[in-house]
Amino acid sequence: MQQLLYGVAYYDEYMPYERLEEDIRMMKAAGINLVRIAESTWSTHEPQNGIFDFTSVDRVLDAMHKAGIHVIVGTPTYAVPTWMVKEHPDVLAETPNGPGRYGARQNMDIINSTYLFYAERIIRKLIARVCSYPAVIGYQVDNETKHYGTSGPNVQFRFIKYMKEKFGTVEQLNQHYGLDYWSNRINSWEDFPSAVGTINGSLGAEFSRFQRQLVTEFLAWQVSIVNEYKRSDQFVTHNFDFDWRGYSFGVQKDVDHFEASKALDIAGVDIYHPSQDELTGKEISFGGDSTRSLKGSNYYVLETQAQAFPNWTPYPGQLRLQAFSHLASGADMVEYWHWHSIHNSIETYWKGLLSHDLGTNPTYEEAITIGRDFKRLSSQLIHLKKENRAALLVSNEALTAMEWFKLPGGEVGYNEIVRLLYDRLYEMNIGCDILNPSSADRFEKYDLIVVPALYAASDDLLEQLNQYVENGGHVVYTFKSGFANEHIKVRTGMQPGIIEKACGVRYSQFVQPNKVSLKGNPFDVEEKSNRIDVWMELLTPTTAEVLAWYDHPHWGTYAAITENRYGLGTATYIGCMPSAEVAGKVLERACKAAGLYGPDQDLRFPLIVKSGVNEAGRTIRYYFNYSNDSNRFLYPHGNGIELLSGRNIGSGEPIDLESWGFVIIEENSIPVT
Amino acid sequence: MQQLLYGVAYYDEYMPYERLEEDIRMMKAAGINLVRIAESTWSTHEPQNGIFDFTSVDRVLDAMHKAGIHVIVGTPTYAVPTWMVKEHPDVLAETPNGPGRYGARQNMDIINSTYLFYAERIIRKLIARVCSYPAVIGYQVDNETKHYGTSGPNVQFRFIKYMKEKFGTVEQLNQHYGLDYWSNRINSWEDFPSAVGTINGSLGAEFSRFQRQLVTEFLAWQVSIVNEYKRSDQFVTHNFDFDWRGYSFGVQKDVDHFEASKALDIAGVDIYHPSQDELTGKEISFGGDSTRSLKGSNYYVLETQAQAFPNWTPYPGQLRLQAFSHLASGADMVEYWHWHSIHNSIETYWKGLLSHDLGTNPTYEEAITIGRDFKRLSSQLIHLKKENRAALLVSNEALTAMEWFKLPGGEVGYNEIVRLLYDRLYEMNIGCDILNPSSADRFEKYDLIVVPALYAASDDLLEQLNQYVENGGHVVYTFKSGFANEHIKVRTGMQPGIIEKACGVRYSQFVQPNKVSLKGNPFDVEEKSNRIDVWMELLTPTTAEVLAWYDHPHWGTYAAITENRYGLGTATYIGCMPSAEVAGKVLERACKAAGLYGPDQDLRFPLIVKSGVNEAGRTIRYYFNYSNDSNRFLYPHGNGIELLSGRNIGSGEPIDLESWGFVIIEENSIPVT
Amino acid sequence: MQQLLYGVAYYDEYMPYERLEEDIRMMKAAGINLVRIAESTWSTHEPQNGIFDFTSVDRVLDAMHKAGIHVIVGTPTYAVPTWMVKEHPDVLAETPNGPGRYGARQNMDIINSTYLFYAERIIRKLIARVCSYPAVIGYQVDNETKHYGTSGPNVQFRFIKYMKEKFGTVEQLNQHYGLDYWSNRINSWEDFPSAVGTINGSLGAEFSRFQRQLVTEFLAWQVSIVNEYKRSDQFVTHNFDFDWRGYSFGVQKDVDHFEASKALDIAGVDIYHPSQDELTGKEISFGGDSTRSLKGSNYYVLETQAQAFPNWTPYPGQLRLQAFSHLASGADMVEYWHWHSIHNSIETYWKGLLSHDLGTNPTYEEAITIGRDFKRLSSQLIHLKKENRAALLVSNEALTAMEWFKLPGGEVGYNEIVRLLYDRLYEMNIGCDILNPSSADRFEKYDLIVVPALYAASDDLLEQLNQYVENGGHVVYTFKSGFANEHIKVRTGMQPGIIEKACGVRYSQFVQPNKVSLKGNPFDVEEKSNRIDVWMELLTPTTAEVLAWYDHPHWGTYAAITENRYGLGTATYIGCMPSAEVAGKVLERACKAAGLYGPDQDLRFPLIVKSGVNEAGRTIRYYFNYSNDSNRFLYPHGNGIELLSGRNIGSGEPIDLESWGFVIIEENSIPVT
Repeated sequence: MQQLLYGVAYYDEYMPYERLEEDIRMMKAAGINLVRIAESTWSTHEPQNGIFDFTSVDRVLDAMHKAGIHVIVGTPTYAVPTWMVKEHPDVLAETPNGPGRYGARQNMDIINSTYLFYAERIIRKLIARVCSYPAVIGYQVDNETKHYGTSGPNVQFRFIKYMKEKFGTVEQLNQHYGLDYWSNRINSWEDFPSAVGTINGSLGAEFSRFQRQLVTEFLAWQVSIVNEYKRSDQFVTHNFDFDWRGYSFGVQKDVDHFEASKALDIAGVDIYHPSQDELTGKEISFGGDSTRSLKGSNYYVLETQAQAFPNWTPYPGQLRLQAFSHLASGADMVEYWHWHSIHNSIETYWKGLLSHDLGTNPTYEEAITIGRDFKRLSSQLIHLKKENRAALLVSNEALTAMEWFKLPGGEVGYNEIVRLLYDRLYEMNIGCDILNPSSADRFEKYDLIVVPALYAASDDLLEQLNQYVENGGHVVYTFKSGFANEHIKVRTGMQPGIIEKACGVRYSQFVQPNKVSLKGNPFDVEEKSNRIDVWMELLTPTTAEVLAWYDHPHWGTYAAITENRYGLGTATYIGCMPSAEVAGKVLERACKAAGLYGPDQDLRFPLIVKSGVNEAGRTIRYYFNYSNDSNRFLYPHGNGIELLSGRNIGSGEPIDLESWGFVIIEENSIPVT
Repeated sequence: MQQLLYGVAYYDEYMPYERLEEDIRMMKAAGINLVRIAESTWSTHEPQNGIFDFTSVDRVLDAMHKAGIHVIVGTPTYAVPTWMVKEHPDVLAETPNGPGRYGARQNMDIINSTYLFYAERIIRKLIARVCSYPAVIGYQVDNETKHYGTSGPNVQFRFIKYMKEKFGTVEQLNQHYGLDYWSNRINSWEDFPSAVGTINGSLGAEFSRFQRQLVTEFLAWQVSIVNEYKRSDQFVTHNFDFDWRGYSFGVQKDVDHFEASKALDIAGVDIYHPSQDELTGKEISFGGDSTRSLKGSNYYVLETQAQAFPNWTPYPGQLRLQAFSHLASGADMVEYWHWHSIHNSIETYWKGLLSHDLGTNPTYEEAITIGRDFKRLSSQLIHLKKENRAALLVSNEALTAMEWFKLPGGEVGYNEIVRLLYDRLYEMNIGCDILNPSSADRFEKYDLIVVPALYAASDDLLEQLNQYVENGGHVVYTFKSGFANEHIKVRTGMQPGIIEKACGVRYSQFVQPNKVSLKGNPFDVEEKSNRIDVWMELLTPTTAEVLAWYDHPHWGTYAAITENRYGLGTATYIGCMPSAEVAGKVLERACKAAGLYGPDQDLRFPLIVKSGVNEAGRTIRYYFNYSNDSNRFLYPHGNGIELLSGRNIGSGEPIDLESWGFVIIEENSIPVT
Repeated sequence: MQQLLYGVAYYDEYMPYERLEEDIRMMKAAGINLVRIAESTWSTHEPQNGIFDFTSVDRVLDAMHKAGIHVIVGTPTYAVPTWMVKEHPDVLAETPNGPGRYGARQNMDIINSTYLFYAERIIRKLIARVCSYPAVIGYQVDNETKHYGTSGPNVQFRFIKYMKEKFGTVEQLNQHYGLDYWSNRINSWEDFPSAVGTINGSLGAEFSRFQRQLVTEFLAWQVSIVNEYKRSDQFVTHNFDFDWRGYSFGVQKDVDHFEASKALDIAGVDIYHPSQDELTGKEISFGGDSTRSLKGSNYYVLETQAQAFPNWTPYPGQLRLQAFSHLASGADMVEYWHWHSIHNSIETYWKGLLSHDLGTNPTYEEAITIGRDFKRLSSQLIHLKKENRAALLVSNEALTAMEWFKLPGGEVGYNEIVRLLYDRLYEMNIGCDILNPSSADRFEKYDLIVVPALYAASDDLLEQLNQYVENGGHVVYTFKSGFANEHIKVRTGMQPGIIEKACGVRYSQFVQPNKVSLKGNPFDVEEKSNRIDVWMELLTPTTAEVLAWYDHPHWGTYAAITENRYGLGTATYIGCMPSAEVAGKVLERACKAAGLYGPDQDLRFPLIVKSGVNEAGRTIRYYFNYSNDSNRFLYPHGNGIELLSGRNIGSGEPIDLESWGFVIIEENSIPVT
């Protein structure tokens, strides 16, 4: 679309009384130019097996068209009707917790043939009907799809075939997974037990990978059906989501976003985050970087919060700050879940732009200003192109493996390490892309690759990282990286295995720290931040320079953090879980070495800078103040214009940002490319 | 009965050796004039299917009669024999956790026909046998009956019929419960899923209401059978219990006490409470007020603790204090669970009046003094009539609804709010009755009605409350009141909906407070008490006076607590969860405005005053010292006589109460009525 | 064996590549002279039903023989192959949590006939094959056997027969277990319900005893099979383990070690313990004393940790300290679990002597010194005989009973009380044996018997303890002792029942203390240690001297700790849960009275002394320094030789121990016996 999209999920079906005209009036007033419909209401559209009723879809499409509001139509497959479960109880997924129960959504077996039969039928009926409506600009397949833990006999049956395909012989399987241990050998494919009870992390992680593949296949299958109907000016997207900690936290373990997004025309995402005093923009940035990196392009925020929970209701100014933060990460759409607060059922307190009274309110009134600015600045802000020189390498395999082999204490897992590093980059305004193991061919684009806890990785991937360093790249690894191969088999040589070459350190022992600090506070941090936690590898440098030693009566001869020149590049190795402050210092050093340090890095969180190049080829820079206090900074770039106010800004000019305020500066000169 | 009853639950069947004669000797010595028997020992009385053995009942009835001790006979239906479960496993309730297991009591399906067949037979056999025994003064049907989570297919089958009856058409149901959401529509009664897995709070809460109705019907059915045998001088009662937090805490969510008590001749109750340093009398008072209000009459404490757990063993004086506190709330009976500590099984440490050694002990010795005083003062203390001018309105529906829609943090639920308010009234010696939504015709009796978190309520009820204020009544509401209707559908207008009329405030947003206080400490409380928690509604007064504003950089323009004149009355609205101290101040203000403030309100907890009028028409006042320290107060009423000592007390005379001590003063003059 | 054994569990099957020769080279270098094999790898040795493959066993036995390394062969029955479960799903135990799942070990029903058929066959095949190999010195039957909660219908069926055998009539059963309570009577054997759901602690504890008996029978059955093949120079052992709290903590509730060890030739044990700053030697000592006491003889440590978890990786010196601590408790073998860290599956981080890189490392290098010293000092240190004069009496019955009747708060259970007392004896260097109720005929051997919380005990046992005191013995009891009989029926007389005679105290009430101390700090301990917790019995002395009174406004008239002369002996009674320091003082007083106090008691933890007599009849004394700091002491015994250094030590000579260091002194003179 050649237009910034400002949207809401809209459920005419949920309305407590006839509201369509009034809703559209209020949407128009707020500059809403998009609604998403239909993805949750299968039981309304197919009230009985084979009886269809698209009244609410039709009337909404007509009304939206009349109002000039675009529509995304969702396939309503993530929540099945009562009649289906009553008639075919086995459409519900059997999980490790037992058979499914009707009630919640996302409880079906996504490979059950009966479910797939009905899903295909409703998709075809719905999409065939809506595809020619002029208001329809695209489709969302399903909703936050995952595998829902499906692991019944039919899933196990298919898994065995998958394993046969992968390993050929049971002997190979036994060898790679070490199944002699505890008498777990599988000496004939017929003996293959359900993976549900396994204590073998290799097998368990493979089953998780298989389950992720089911998600990829399911989404691709839906897309292929929708594609049969889709007009050339329409798109297909899907709303991915993240590891959920009450909000969007980290890498999603149940879906391989990189694989699953291949079938889509444009990547979409749902981002939810703390608000009020806890609003930092980190989740908006992480979710945006993750989604933009899937297809290396702009993306749609298909769901984000308006008022949501009591503790997420935004302070004045925050809704605006959030909306433009999405744009600043490369989003071309900001869509709220959802238009109106619902009056019944489990998400009653996941409030929409409208409260339950369906009238105006301060949040809605703030949305009006956003809609106005989106419309006014659309051509300058849309399709922001970002060329980041830093990247973060994440891995579903490493995440799953670390679920199997948890760090002591159980509080720090893979995503905590991911966020420890990502958040530090964010705080120093280093823009970054997100890579995964399939991105190896793009390593060379970057000056710095940050690699949190790459616990499980193939030889190939690690060799490519070595090569990247040798060719002049900078890598920052944390502890645990390189420890096991892609089968979660621990490497049989000295650790950190293959990457020792680039890192110039080795170890064969590791311990759990107990009040351990870094000797002599080498990063000059606050006393209480000069500590390490959770894990310490007893590193011995071979060629590396030691940046920090452990301060400990017995382990004081071992290194904690090292840096190694290798070929033309540098590899930093963090052998322990550092404090946020220490992690920040190590990354700052690496960024400087990689030449990533510029004037925007003199600004630090809560002053956040995001930039990119717009369609006119001009650099756009957002300066956000993520703080209850007002803030001032000196604008360090070339003369430009502040787009919200239309004011000219000179280089070096002081700019004041109010609490939760921001400016958008378009630089006047067009850089020569 | 024209006699204060001092009783024990007695289990001849549990005795480790022949004790009947010795037990009766010790009971007589302690003034015990009542025992309850038989309610727990079905397997003793029907050792095999259809084989009956009432030996232990007969001999106890004979012996008690001889000793002049009254007997209540319980129907033994709450714990089923082994043979029944072995022969008919389906008598055990299927619950959301799966099929039942034999072992514990209260695990049967109370609508299972097989169970009901056997229950009816044992009831008829037992009651037919005992009804003519002279010692028998009454019956207890079942024991602390609840629905035990029964929710198997037969229960769902009946629930669907109940829903058909209630709604007529599925369309009505879908509309009221918002079942379009997440594809939960029920488009044909045949499609109705088990309610167990539902995520729709309207449906889930209705199922809970249905389950409570099963309890009401079950008890009424038992009463109807017993009534066929009951002599005219005998009564039927039941021992209700409360929301259990290790002790009797609040409103019982699984039983509608008001409905269920209708079939009974007299209301009964089980009250257990902390002791030693944690003894406050609050549970005795709350449980007593609740039970007295069921039938507007005196009630029986069918179970309360003697020694019970190690942490409940009373300090010297506490057993006396407790016994008379029950009388002061309107009880005509105090019965211990139980006579003797049991030597086997799960309640071994729920000790009786006798320890396991079955000899005397300090607690038993204190009971002797109680029995003596009960006997001596019976005619003056029995049938205490109380005319309270304040009432607390509680609601099973609101309680259930708030289980579905929990407050943030999960620590404060409906009953915490009930107790926050009730306990403050208790501490300032405001006697109160307990109402429920069915009591609307009695509102006018009261000068003040306190309404905690009436989250779910019909339009009618709220209109009646408005009317009550308009007519001159005083109401104190807390946050969440009026939010949803009786179907737990959130009202679609501005909040607090219908009661806005009386309260003069409105809001459409609410947030979770984080270190929020009330601006300027308007209630002049301790610094640490000037805070609110859990919930804050962003109130805008329309006609109300603001008693407190939030102290917050962004929400400081909203009101926290308001007071509104409406018609001839006043409505106070507390839009947040205040500290106990602030809640106390708000209630004090309301009590004063309602004219409830008298000399007894100058005394405060730990000095507790309870009063009523005895059969002679004289006012009886108890002054209790709930404290390890001795206390003095000036007696503020007319001349009277202190009944324990027989001493004359003059108006204004100082009275000393020792640690855990109390006095009972009967005023000399009879008030003109 | 006439040789100290220094061993490792060895799994050729788990090796990631061919390693046998290199492993043996490294073992020899470290002085390893023993490996245990085969106990975990049924699926390797019987890859299909009835197809056997002992290749890895044969080649290891040959190679070990050639290298002069002894072998223990384990029966591989604790982890079943995939084919068996696929063919016979019912071999998995049904537990209270439902049917079993394949994956983990120790999940089978040890009375399932199919399992037993296959188990017998693999045992016979394996042992018949290996018994004539010269390297094989003995066998381990199964591994850390327990009953795994097996409680399905077949187990219940057998349990009923067991109960019939025990009680004869249901009337007896009902009487002893108090089954009238809550209608739990069993009036016909056919009605006997599954014990799984019972709330009757007597029945539940009996079922646990029955389950322990299943373990005893299972192990005896295995031993009987192995004995058919065993050469006269071979032994059969088993590795018992302990109540697991993340490490070996206390009495194992699921196995009666005393009964189960009867079938064995030599007792074996697995001991795991905290390390680094938390290494105290307590678990090594407790586990050693427990195991040595089973057969009154030396024992084998079949498993203990090398590196294990990150938090157990030993500091320099600790591996040596641990190894010799085992010897000092009477072990003749120290075997690590395990040789090499595993590269897959659940115990990947339970590291072996070798890290995953399979090369040398600091821990392995320390093992080399241990192997050298074991070999050099074998004849002086082997077969250490210990004649302790103190004993601790533990009981599976009391442990199980206290699981049913938990102390308030739930944090202190039976084993916490056991360790409270055991650890104090350890800290003051009082060597002790561990007794159980079957050891009554050996009471007279001891001067002091310490009896923690003997909650459930037969009249006989308590009478024997009375008799022991009367004859001159010293007993220290804690609270709860004597409370219930062997059926967990609380005694019906004054407490502490039968032992009142020896203790001279009685009580009928008990409470939970809340900030209670001992009046006047009678043991002169630190202020914060002068407190009691969890439980306080309100003791009234009859003939006892009061050592401590409670300091409490209401309970201050009751005694807390008493001491009583009875006959020629003394009984101390601790009526509450004291602090560690108070418990230590009470035990110190008792030890002094019992004449157990010598010069080694002037040394205290972290200086630990262990002694015994070697085969030459000379006294061997180990002095261990369990501390990060160096320590000095004056050697208080007769002249001797320090065996590690060969240095002569004179009586009274100062000896310096470095951090985690120790000396071993053999006294020159041979005591006259």
